[in-house]
Amino acid sequence: MRHLLDTKHLGREDALRILDVAEDMAATQQREVRKLPTLRGKTVVNLFFEDSTRTRISFEAAAKRLSADVINFSAKGSSVSKGESLQDTAQTLQAMGADAVVIRHGASGAPQTLATSGWISAGVVNAGDGTHAHPTQALLDAFTIRKRFFGDGSRGRDLAGLRVTIVGDILHSRVARSNVWLLTTLGASVTLVAPPTLVPQDVSAWPVDVVYDLDDAIAAGPDALMMLRIQLERMNAAYFPTEREYSRTWGLDAARLAALPADSIVLHPGPMNRGMEISAAAADSPRSTVLEQVANGVSVRMAVLYLLLAGERTEAEEDGR
Amino acid sequence: MRHLLDTKHLGREDALRILDVAEDMAATQQREVRKLPTLRGKTVVNLFFEDSTRTRISFEAAAKRLSADVINFSAKGSSVSKGESLQDTAQTLQAMGADAVVIRHGASGAPQTLATSGWISAGVVNAGDGTHAHPTQALLDAFTIRKRFFGDGSRGRDLAGLRVTIVGDILHSRVARSNVWLLTTLGASVTLVAPPTLVPQDVSAWPVDVVYDLDDAIAAGPDALMMLRIQLERMNAAYFPTEREYSRTWGLDAARLAALPADSIVLHPGPMNRGMEISAAAADSPRSTVLEQVANGVSVRMAVLYLLLAGERTEAEEDGR
Amino acid sequence: MRHLLDTKHLGREDALRILDVAEDMAATQQREVRKLPTLRGKTVVNLFFEDSTRTRISFEAAAKRLSADVINFSAKGSSVSKGESLQDTAQTLQAMGADAVVIRHGASGAPQTLATSGWISAGVVNAGDGTHAHPTQALLDAFTIRKRFFGDGSRGRDLAGLRVTIVGDILHSRVARSNVWLLTTLGASVTLVAPPTLVPQDVSAWPVDVVYDLDDAIAAGPDALMMLRIQLERMNAAYFPTEREYSRTWGLDAARLAALPADSIVLHPGPMNRGMEISAAAADSPRSTVLEQVANGVSVRMAVLYLLLAGERTEAEEDGR
Repeated sequence: MRHLLDTKHLGREDALRILDVAEDMAATQQREVRKLPTLRGKTVVNLFFEDSTRTRISFEAAAKRLSADVINFSAKGSSVSKGESLQDTAQTLQAMGADAVVIRHGASGAPQTLATSGWISAGVVNAGDGTHAHPTQALLDAFTIRKRFFGDGSRGRDLAGLRVTIVGDILHSRVARSNVWLLTTLGASVTLVAPPTLVPQDVSAWPVDVVYDLDDAIAAGPDALMMLRIQLERMNAAYFPTEREYSRTWGLDAARLAALPADSIVLHPGPMNRGMEISAAAADSPRSTVLEQVANGVSVRMAVLYLLLAGERTEAEEDGR
Repeated sequence: MRHLLDTKHLGREDALRILDVAEDMAATQQREVRKLPTLRGKTVVNLFFEDSTRTRISFEAAAKRLSADVINFSAKGSSVSKGESLQDTAQTLQAMGADAVVIRHGASGAPQTLATSGWISAGVVNAGDGTHAHPTQALLDAFTIRKRFFGDGSRGRDLAGLRVTIVGDILHSRVARSNVWLLTTLGASVTLVAPPTLVPQDVSAWPVDVVYDLDDAIAAGPDALMMLRIQLERMNAAYFPTEREYSRTWGLDAARLAALPADSIVLHPGPMNRGMEISAAAADSPRSTVLEQVANGVSVRMAVLYLLLAGERTEAEEDGR
Repeated sequence: MRHLLDTKHLGREDALRILDVAEDMAATQQREVRKLPTLRGKTVVNLFFEDSTRTRISFEAAAKRLSADVINFSAKGSSVSKGESLQDTAQTLQAMGADAVVIRHGASGAPQTLATSGWISAGVVNAGDGTHAHPTQALLDAFTIRKRFFGDGSRGRDLAGLRVTIVGDILHSRVARSNVWLLTTLGASVTLVAPPTLVPQDVSAWPVDVVYDLDDAIAAGPDALMMLRIQLERMNAAYFPTEREYSRTWGLDAARLAALPADSIVLHPGPMNRGMEISAAAADSPRSTVLEQVANGVSVRMAVLYLLLAGERTEAEEDGR
């Protein structure tokens, strides 16, 4: 694997390989000494054009557990904010010897540009770009679902037969997009639940069902319910009258939690708005996988960094992308 | 030891154990290669809700000397500032594999909440919370006093017989509170000197004497004089007419320095307002322990991290707090 | 070497020694595992009073490749911004065990003050101070020139016979100043090209020629042309009417690039204002050494940290500066 840019173009074999390596990584994290020497001497740069402490420290922890050197580069206050181009920033990091660049950017497509421009030979990991993609989030979600339903010995297994329902602001969510592609690649069937104004116009081209009523979606009995984080700053009259209204119509409250199938699980990418899209009771219930998702996030990111920086490359990969 | 939250509930044995381990740590810092492999593979998170570069880098240096991985988490610009709860932040860090969380928080009691909530199993070190406590500061002060008066070979020794006088804004000072409890636990007698408006209302329940005149306190011949940092932003007519007035009435000027007993010492937690609570002459005099306090701070924090993360736990500790 | 403060007082032998060690360092960066154990247990503090992500991460990468612990200390939001003096900051870092302090400061002379004050015994590296000096930038420029003209096997060789022309806002440029002294010490001849208002008043005391027309300077056939970054915030009617005017008069456009001698090179300290002082075509041409400069920057900084922290010291150095 040269880069990880999205899940739409991630094949089933590569996706399963990441999940399987992540399982190996998770196992090492149970040891007394969790640190692996694998990436000693490698440099991972966290290039964050948007604040995201959670994602940044998850990648930082993953890289350090593999003994890589980590350099944090927040674009705020840097020459980037003085107008330096992405090209110059990228080439600078490359010249300094970055082996992987983990990039978070407000513009959809920025990681793709970085990886395919020829500016750098370092591996590029998309840590979230605009409304486009957040592949490691989807991978950790898939890992979490697989582990909950099939247990530790699920190497090589995909998600065939499982039904996943994603609820919230689909239109603006890179998490939703990345999950749609990855989960369906892995054989799951995906249903989206959203107000009509928050469904993308091209959704008919997606391999999903769309419903417009959360109670209907819950009545259909999903195996996994993924509640997206509502961006409070996007709240306005065009979408919802009030926060209370959102919570009432689209939030996972106690009644809806109780209506879920007995063995179903509830995912949330965090950070949660307790009382908005998810009630405290739901967040803290045994069905909630929120904290497993965080823990699995470190394992998945270790796997991705490992495969990018220590994995053997195929000839095709050596030649190009 | 599971956590270090305050000094009020720190017993004499535990306190001496920290000071003794800190002496061992200080000895290792004299070596050519100062780094110890002790905490290899452990992750220490500095969770700072308030800026405090000095305290943060002291903990960072301590953790790195012990070979721990350090992740800095400034709450500014993080999801915390978007309204994430302390609970969610804490559980996230825990899920990412934090072994210790060093927390600085503006609200008194936040570290206690973190440690006793059941949210996390990581060790919690209070790096300063509101006006409540700053236990590692008190420990480094006690260590500094012990070392100055009893020398390097003072393992196991407490501070019995020593008289310590603390001067300044006691009301708002977590440094003062933590020192009062620790120093008296270790057998020292403590006198507070402050303007009446800056003495806490419950001071009668503290094991201290209070006087209202700095010259009287100095005439009493303390062994150690601890000048608190004045928070200039708290300066106002209610307390003092002017900065000059404060300096004249409560500052350690040349005359007062000269009036101290010959073998007495002067402590200050830093950063100093030279010319305000302490004159430059006093700050730089041989009596001043300001820089020793900083150096001892790293040793004390190494000791605390060591005892939390590598020390053997008693059965009672394994069971709970 | 005790400190690296400027290039004006750096002798030819010391300068060549840094360049030669940097060549050794560059060679280690071609290995599969680039990390050297040389500075294990040493602590390097990046003390940055001005933002400079590029310089900071270059030093950070250099220190980490040598296995030093790195602590980043941004003066913003620290006690420094609360009025702490440079003395107290320096002494605090020293007391915490800093072995080297890499300082970037807005005031010319701050690193000198730090190094000669007696406040600290740590090595001081000037990472840019006011308009005074930026010695590692000049060293990486010299290293880049030597490597381009004389190849890898140029150990011990100086720059005698080469002609370097520096273009732009000489008045405010620490990069220009440091290059003037270093390049001439190494035997190169240096020409400055600038608008009359941006030439320092004392330039007659510098070992350089000054010309006021870029086309004339290019016609003279320099071996290396160094385009300084224009500080857009300094743009005003006193110096130049408009950005367009600057670009037309002082920018390296296609015609000027074509007029350069066939084997000449173009340097730029970065970050570039493409279209202003340098055209995109020039920036990306084979003559441009911009990215080599960045890569060489890490090697040169490794060499400087190595010589400060691991190099043997002469008796004179042990005695003082």
